[in-house]
Amino acid sequence: MTIKANDPSLQSWVNIPSNSDFPIQNLPFGIFQTANLSPRIGVAIGEQVADLQVLAKHGFFDDLKIDRRVFAQAYLNDFIALGKAKTSAVRNRLSEILDSNLEEWDSKELAPYFLHPQSQVQMLMPVKVGDYTDFYSSLEHASNVGAMFRDPSNPLLPNWRHLPVAYHGRASSIVVSGTPIHRPKGQTMPQSAQSPVFGPTQLLDFELEMAFILGKSSELGQSIGTEEAEEYIFGMVLFNDWSARDIQSWEYQPLGPFLSKNFASTVSPWVVTLDALEPFRTETPMQEPAVLPYLQFTGKKSFDINLEVVLQTETSLQEKLCRSNFKYMYWNMSQQLAHHTVTGCNVNVGDMMGSGTISGPSSDSFGSMLELTWRGAKPIALTDGSERKFIHDGDTIILKGWGERDGVRIGFGEAIGKILPAK
Amino acid sequence: MTIKANDPSLQSWVNIPSNSDFPIQNLPFGIFQTANLSPRIGVAIGEQVADLQVLAKHGFFDDLKIDRRVFAQAYLNDFIALGKAKTSAVRNRLSEILDSNLEEWDSKELAPYFLHPQSQVQMLMPVKVGDYTDFYSSLEHASNVGAMFRDPSNPLLPNWRHLPVAYHGRASSIVVSGTPIHRPKGQTMPQSAQSPVFGPTQLLDFELEMAFILGKSSELGQSIGTEEAEEYIFGMVLFNDWSARDIQSWEYQPLGPFLSKNFASTVSPWVVTLDALEPFRTETPMQEPAVLPYLQFTGKKSFDINLEVVLQTETSLQEKLCRSNFKYMYWNMSQQLAHHTVTGCNVNVGDMMGSGTISGPSSDSFGSMLELTWRGAKPIALTDGSERKFIHDGDTIILKGWGERDGVRIGFGEAIGKILPAK
Repeated sequence: MTIKANDPSLQSWVNIPSNSDFPIQNLPFGIFQTANLSPRIGVAIGEQVADLQVLAKHGFFDDLKIDRRVFAQAYLNDFIALGKAKTSAVRNRLSEILDSNLEEWDSKELAPYFLHPQSQVQMLMPVKVGDYTDFYSSLEHASNVGAMFRDPSNPLLPNWRHLPVAYHGRASSIVVSGTPIHRPKGQTMPQSAQSPVFGPTQLLDFELEMAFILGKSSELGQSIGTEEAEEYIFGMVLFNDWSARDIQSWEYQPLGPFLSKNFASTVSPWVVTLDALEPFRTETPMQEPAVLPYLQFTGKKSFDINLEVVLQTETSLQEKLCRSNFKYMYWNMSQQLAHHTVTGCNVNVGDMMGSGTISGPSSDSFGSMLELTWRGAKPIALTDGSERKFIHDGDTIILKGWGERDGVRIGFGEAIGKILPAK
Repeated sequence: MTIKANDPSLQSWVNIPSNSDFPIQNLPFGIFQTANLSPRIGVAIGEQVADLQVLAKHGFFDDLKIDRRVFAQAYLNDFIALGKAKTSAVRNRLSEILDSNLEEWDSKELAPYFLHPQSQVQMLMPVKVGDYTDFYSSLEHASNVGAMFRDPSNPLLPNWRHLPVAYHGRASSIVVSGTPIHRPKGQTMPQSAQSPVFGPTQLLDFELEMAFILGKSSELGQSIGTEEAEEYIFGMVLFNDWSARDIQSWEYQPLGPFLSKNFASTVSPWVVTLDALEPFRTETPMQEPAVLPYLQFTGKKSFDINLEVVLQTETSLQEKLCRSNFKYMYWNMSQQLAHHTVTGCNVNVGDMMGSGTISGPSSDSFGSMLELTWRGAKPIALTDGSERKFIHDGDTIILKGWGERDGVRIGFGEAIGKILPAK
């Protein structure tokens, strides 16, 4: 698929710093507000945000026949519910508006009215999440966890290679990057204890994930096949599935994680469209044994997206904890959505589906402290002389992600969360 | 707590058949529409529905200072978000309006305008569910399942008596009573098979549950204690957590049930308020060992509500499958909500929390086919000569619930679902 707005030769008249996540080929959508402006849709370009409500008011989208009110919403849901024909057309139009070579639009002189420095806006949750599902689709992550907690010689459960294991998560506590998180309290069973104890989690962890956002709804009873799944995927964000490991190990049998993950998840504010990710398509890892027909697919359904996790303590430099890649996922998004809906489960615009922790093959590519420190057995030494087994109060975890090809970097920005002491 | 509208001596000028679920002491809220009327709030009284939009238009609630538009919504959320002071006042006002002894209101002559026969309206989902959580709080159910699938001599997992085990469920597929359900397809691993197979579930089951609906929101980071939990609970419904046992047993490790329950859950249309359930408060079963302080409570936090499950096949009479009671629950709702939020997880108006299957001590009080037929080992003989191990295509499952005291029956109506063949 060739998308005009993805052309690597495009240049914007807006200044784009080298290594920016947001060149003219990206144009991700988000929701922002300022002290004077109510929540509305914005698009990131360089270090600026383009205000779509203002552009709409000046008629830039009139020929696309979109109700202008969708640009003045507090969530992207109504906009993305317009469908890909419309949302892709808006992205293409923005590409024209911001293109240094096109003189069809008088946009440059309006710049003071529709461009705001990113440093001066507040980003909000991009979508109102209906249901949130979290998968468990990294072979390396599932193997690491299985080796630690079950059997190192046979770490995967029998179902793992046959279906993308997943669970329903808590949607209400998904927050946008920058929202501080209080260390959760809960019930745990320390190894030496006779009975459970209550208090702040001692084993707070991050999970490096990405999530896709549904852009199209389905009806109850309808299944979405792998070949049509991408029609339902609007775009992606970075996703930190904060986890309290001590609460989790005590509570999770037999019905899965509950309080250990319901206190917060952090997403990046900019939704990078599947359109913008086209250049990064790649093969899904070989699946062996062969999967059932409803999970089979053709073509390149995985995406080559570099991922990084950085730790910023209150006294250290930024420390790179991990480098991974979304392409390592054993199950791709099309398979995940096909599996999710094969029973007839309906999906809604704004639903969010997390990948599960994205670990790679090498020990510096593991996507959680649990794996990086192997349950605390191998602490990480920091530049301030301290060490980490799990996350301390005052620590900030930053997820980053980007694809790079033909000199163009399509980035996700950051998903940042600082841990405050328990209340 | 004495609530005027609960007075057993009250009589309505509306005809109430004997054994009706909806005497003047109940007044549950729901959403209905007709061919001519858009969705709006109604209250059940006998075999009629009182139209709150019409009553509001005639000024019956004017002194309560409620924006009339909340009565003209497609969900109860905005109404219940007004808070219990307002919603209880509306219920008390309805009690006055419908009281045969009070002449303060000219309501009787308006009856043709605001009363509709229930047989002529369509009931809709009462609330827009944000997040849905399902607990696992029946000792007898957990013991039965543990005995069947793990160890009959030690059926409960170590955590079960220390915390109300729960998992997040799928909100999008919760449907109102009367909505037919297609038998779901999915992946299973038959005992004799070498590899998993795909097809319609062979072990379709119901789960007899009740659910409470949140009437007040909390902030992220805030915990709700047991002593204040009921302030957050607006009311209750019957809840059928349909389950595909063969899909469940293959998929559920290690992250819990997913596709086995995401295809549909059925709720009764009338939300019975906690106010109306006051007369049915009862002691929670003894909890041994003692629970941690954050789960301790005082007073009567359980409710004596009779429950029944009826099977209607296409050729049989109605067959009573089970008689149970909500009071059997080991963990009460206040404990469930306190546990859910102890990490700081926020809740929203319209969130729904299911009890988990409500089984009692005797074998005719088990709340699922799995338990009633003991995994199919003891089939149930039906009046048409057939038998059931699990649910067949064409079968209809009907949940019923009611409290009874001082000659007053406070009922929930029914949660009905018919199973259609797989698509």
